[in-house]
Order: sequence, then structure tokens, then C-alpha cells
Amino acid sequence: MNVQPGQISGRELYRILLCSVAPRPIAWVSTLSGSGQPNLAPFSFFNVVSSDPPMLGFSPSTRRRGDRLGPKDTLRNVRETGEFVVNVVTYDLAAAMNLTSGDYENSVNELELARLTARPSQVVRPPQVAESPVSFECRLFRILDFGSDPSTGSLVIGEIVSLHLDDGVLRDGRLDPEALDLIGRMGGTQYSRTRERFAMLRPKVG
Amino acid sequence: MNVQPGQISGRELYRILLCSVAPRPIAWVSTLSGSGQPNLAPFSFFNVVSSDPPMLGFSPSTRRRGDRLGPKDTLRNVRETGEFVVNVVTYDLAAAMNLTSGDYENSVNELELARLTARPSQVVRPPQVAESPVSFECRLFRILDFGSDPSTGSLVIGEIVSLHLDDGVLRDGRLDPEALDLIGRMGGTQYSRTRERFAMLRPKVG
Repeated sequence: MNVQPGQISGRELYRILLCSVAPRPIAWVSTLSGSGQPNLAPFSFFNVVSSDPPMLGFSPSTRRRGDRLGPKDTLRNVRETGEFVVNVVTYDLAAAMNLTSGDYENSVNELELARLTARPSQVVRPPQVAESPVSFECRLFRILDFGSDPSTGSLVIGEIVSLHLDDGVLRDGRLDPEALDLIGRMGGTQYSRTRERFAMLRPKVG
Repeated sequence: MNVQPGQISGRELYRILLCSVAPRPIAWVSTLSGSGQPNLAPFSFFNVVSSDPPMLGFSPSTRRRGDRLGPKDTLRNVRETGEFVVNVVTYDLAAAMNLTSGDYENSVNELELARLTARPSQVVRPPQVAESPVSFECRLFRILDFGSDPSTGSLVIGEIVSLHLDDGVLRDGRLDPEALDLIGRMGGTQYSRTRERFAMLRPKVG
């Protein structure tokens, strides 16, 4: 079947994207509003966008549900303050992460709601999620707005200015990849675990 | 442990990013050079960057290995032609995908090398990988260059102009998420499968 985006509903196109662009890493993003109100929300349109300089990008894109625009607090906070922290999500944190994905009033502190602990950052003001083993402090580089609706078409790009690695995930002073029990986002309500792995060496050329 | 990017080597920082921003979806990107030479290469700094308008982004970022710059043909081709196709990678295609990740001379057609079949696209000129169940035809929207070295710091953003969905992954005319046996990229030589899943409903608010 071949279709063009205009030939199917936005809802169906969104569903196809969620199912096909997977598994997606999850950025659990902590921010402060201009007046200092903390916010925490997960985003899976997220990845490294540059390794040198080190940059992370995430899109607060969410399909409109009636009048609700989804997690717009994060985007507004980043616009106001120019700072955010990306915390990684392990299997143990799945339920707490999911709890912070609700469309709460902006007066709700999702860290408290999910009984999480704030860990101070080194360079930026937003706190980290202390329960997360790896946190990236980011300074806003640029926000790209692709469409007229920032709830479906914006990309936030930040440069990593400081990293936190828990001692528990270090071995000989380096990050132990086996110690991170990360989860990924699939389509619908589905998440994937990352314990079932296989290895492939890159082909040697020339 | 808290560190700032300048306090560790670029190599170690890259390794931390690969291990921590995971699992990553894989874009198997087919392009044509300005003179019509086909190219196919996988990239895992990849995700949806906007749902409406529908945009995909990938970064050809690769750490320098001595003089080798990694898969630069894709980036040059996109700059020359403004078009690319993103094909998804299932477990069955893992070995073929890995074969196309080598740093081959630009005269090598990775589709032929990996014994894959070209499927014509509907709107753009680069062919699709016929063995991949979902392909996104994209027209270049913008290339962001973050640093002085395009092999480590560029983000390619394209708008989806047409989609191919294999009949085998459709049920009642809609994409069946259970039919896609996708794989994800982890750190080092590791990949994850996506068969071990769990579901969480978003919290209802208000």
C-alpha cells in the first residue's frame, strides 16, 4: 500500500509513525518555569542530534486530543529559561515515568506526584531525577517550529553542558552498558525492554 | 560522578551517549548521488521530529576513526538531491543492514552488496529497500550543521511525502504493530530486540 500523508487522517499517520519509528529512547525532561515551578515529563521523539558538539534533541509533539494539547509545559519552560535536564528511564522507573506523562495543570510538580527525589544540577537550574542513573544537563541551542501548532511540530535542541553518572552504573570509572536496564517506547501503550540483545561487528572495509 | 564534556575525551563522551540514549530506532537511508549512484546506510541518531507536519530527522554523526569519516555519502547525496528514503529494519534484515554500515567507496551500491531489491518510490527518485516492510519517502526540509565537522555534527530533517506499507504488515487496512519485528540500536556492538514488551496506560487527568 502506498499513501501520501494528506490521504490519511492525522491520527492514523501519527499511529503509523509511533509503530514504525521504534523502539524510541525516552527523555524524561525536567525543567523550571520562569517563576521557578518544577516540571517533569517524558518524550520519546528524542535522540542524539550531534555527537561533537554534543547535542540532544526532543520534540514535544503530541497529537491533539480535543482541546488538550499534551505536555506543553516543558516547551514553554524551555522557551522561558533556556535550560532543561534529560534523565534516562530504566525499567524500575517505568511506573513513575508513566505517572508523569499525564496532562496535569502547570501547578502540579510531577516530581512530588511520582514521589521522586530532586538532585541539584551542576550547571543549569532545573533539578535532576535522583533515581535516574544518567542525567544530561542541557542549555538550549535552538527551537525549530515546523508548523503553526507548537504542540505537534517543534524540535528542542540543547547542548550538553554537564553529565551525571551514578556510581552504581560505573565500572572502573567508566559507564557499564550492562548496568543500564533501559526501556524503549513503541506504538500505542507499548514499551519494550532491552534485555534481549544481540551483537554485530561492523564490516571491515579495505 | 559529575563531568563536563570538556573534561572527558570525545571518544568516551560518544560511548556514554550511545549507551545512555537507547534503544534507538534505525533509519536505513537510501539516496542517490547527483549523478544517480545509489547508496544505502543505517543511522540510529534518528527519530520523528514533528508529527504535523510529518518530519523525520537523522544525524549522520559518526566518531572519526583516524582519517575515515564514516558514512558521509548519504549526507553528500542529500545535499545534492534534496531527497531520501527511510526504510525500517526488522530482525530478519539485521545482517543485511549491518553489511551496509561499512565505510565503502562511493562507487559501491550497498543494495547490491547486501543482495537487496530496489523498489521504486512514488514521489522521490531514490529507491526503497523492497525487503523492508515500511518505507518513508522524504523531501529535504533543512540540514542543521552544529559544528565545523559535518561528520560529527549535522542533522538532516525531511518531510514525509509518501509512505509504503507492505500488505503483510496490514490488518484490516491498518498497520498491525505486532507484525513489525523491529530492532533497536544500543551502545557498542549491541542491538536490542523488541519482542519483550509491556503496556502502560497514560494516567487520566481531571
